[in-house]
Amino acid sequence: MKKITKEEIADGFKNLQDAICKSVEKLDGGSAFKEDVWSRPEGGGGRSRVLKNGELIEKGGVNFSAVSGATPDKILKALNLSEADFFATGVSIVLHPSNPWVPIIHMNVRYFEMSTGVWWFGGGIDLTPHIIIPEKAKNFHQHLKKTCDNHDDSFYPKFKQWADDYFFVKHRDETRGIGGIFFDRLSDKEGKTKTDQWKFVREVGETFVPAYSDAVDELRNRPYSASDKNWQKIRRGRYVEFNLVHDKGTKFGLDTNGRTESILMSLPPEANWEYDHKPETKEQKETLELLKKGIDWIS
Amino acid sequence: MKKITKEEIADGFKNLQDAICKSVEKLDGGSAFKEDVWSRPEGGGGRSRVLKNGELIEKGGVNFSAVSGATPDKILKALNLSEADFFATGVSIVLHPSNPWVPIIHMNVRYFEMSTGVWWFGGGIDLTPHIIIPEKAKNFHQHLKKTCDNHDDSFYPKFKQWADDYFFVKHRDETRGIGGIFFDRLSDKEGKTKTDQWKFVREVGETFVPAYSDAVDELRNRPYSASDKNWQKIRRGRYVEFNLVHDKGTKFGLDTNGRTESILMSLPPEANWEYDHKPETKEQKETLELLKKGIDWIS
Repeated sequence: MKKITKEEIADGFKNLQDAICKSVEKLDGGSAFKEDVWSRPEGGGGRSRVLKNGELIEKGGVNFSAVSGATPDKILKALNLSEADFFATGVSIVLHPSNPWVPIIHMNVRYFEMSTGVWWFGGGIDLTPHIIIPEKAKNFHQHLKKTCDNHDDSFYPKFKQWADDYFFVKHRDETRGIGGIFFDRLSDKEGKTKTDQWKFVREVGETFVPAYSDAVDELRNRPYSASDKNWQKIRRGRYVEFNLVHDKGTKFGLDTNGRTESILMSLPPEANWEYDHKPETKEQKETLELLKKGIDWIS
Repeated sequence: MKKITKEEIADGFKNLQDAICKSVEKLDGGSAFKEDVWSRPEGGGGRSRVLKNGELIEKGGVNFSAVSGATPDKILKALNLSEADFFATGVSIVLHPSNPWVPIIHMNVRYFEMSTGVWWFGGGIDLTPHIIIPEKAKNFHQHLKKTCDNHDDSFYPKFKQWADDYFFVKHRDETRGIGGIFFDRLSDKEGKTKTDQWKFVREVGETFVPAYSDAVDELRNRPYSASDKNWQKIRRGRYVEFNLVHDKGTKFGLDTNGRTESILMSLPPEANWEYDHKPETKEQKETLELLKKGIDWIS
């Protein structure tokens, strides 16, 4: 059987971007994505799509890119190589809703290969509620578990823990949100073919819309107080802290002269920092108590 | 002559914090600092002072600390040592004014020594106008040059360039603001004694109030548009990016389990991120053109 090519994977990601944008516009109901097509001097390019001041989404980005060229020194060094070309393609999403009851969502699915023959898939989906509602967190994790279980029973427990460890704001001793799944270096190990891994990654991408639709449902029109709106901006500040201090993808992009506006589309429209801010409501207090690793949201 | 001790230096920094807080409250005219005294389990502690929603300053911090204990691995490694105790003391300031015409200011003065006998001073002052006014930038640099020239003719040109290089937001290809001075590892080299270097560092500390008073003067009541206020929040976003992505002091503090609330008091009360935001006024456009290294503000 012919192995799937990098062009087919990139096309699959493009289609995924199209499908997700269409669904998010429909879910939003008030705004449309604006597209910027860009090219990278060293090879390849992308389509950045941004939605602003919608009914549901205050600021959101759904980006596709497929870039290639000489492998950045950082990766060469990590892989103990002196020279090689690379190809990387993927879809990255962050949506910041305006209503503080509605969670922030992030997804990334990606494929990487080098001229030496090495290749892998990576990605994940995770949810950052400003205010955590355990029942909604359970539903979100159920979506992810179902997708994982369709491919390998070991995926969900492994990738759920990986997300807990990855989306952790160490200097605050808090998880970013309720986690989700995170995986990297999925390759042709443990009896899996490239096509098997691609099918899994594509299904992760397809889980985005139903999982977020459920996460939004019944919350998008929920009334909120000034305290909750302020709390949202404080939590968005933590999101900024995670992305700029800890996130390896952001760091790698900025270090290797990536397209800054596309990388930093993940940052919220507005964020606040108050010295030593304390939660003001029962729900805000409970949220802080739930920003921990190792919570089993499903059982 | 008896060498100045670490206790005398720490006392000097404490007095500097007191004097600056008093002057900043007077300059503000509407608010007072709130103090948090904290101690570090491993040794030492600090006094964090924060001012909020003043007449001039929307959010400001003037922090003193004097900490000691086993040297963090990161420093040991950098100095090629296997074990040593350290002592570090200093004053750190960031003031975020509410009026977008008024610049953000930052100062840090610090002393570090180890049980091996090595010691040094470091620090600097730099200004980040949301909207650059060259005449005001000139005045600010004149203050710093005068202080430097009182001690060594080589200081201002060297430390001014160091600030240009240090306060640089690489992923935006912009300086953070109009720079100022930055220096590190000032020790007993080039004929200088510890007392000489201490006198210089103390005078840098004493330059803060007159330099900022001039920077604020005639601008604090200047009317501004909604566009300028939004621009301020975008520029504050860049300030966050510098501090969280590039600033070595912030990174070191977060990496070594420093007091997060004191370290991140530098972050603005409100910051915005808009995808691909463009300047809207002549002054905003000119500001972007002046965020470059190597500008001689004085001549």
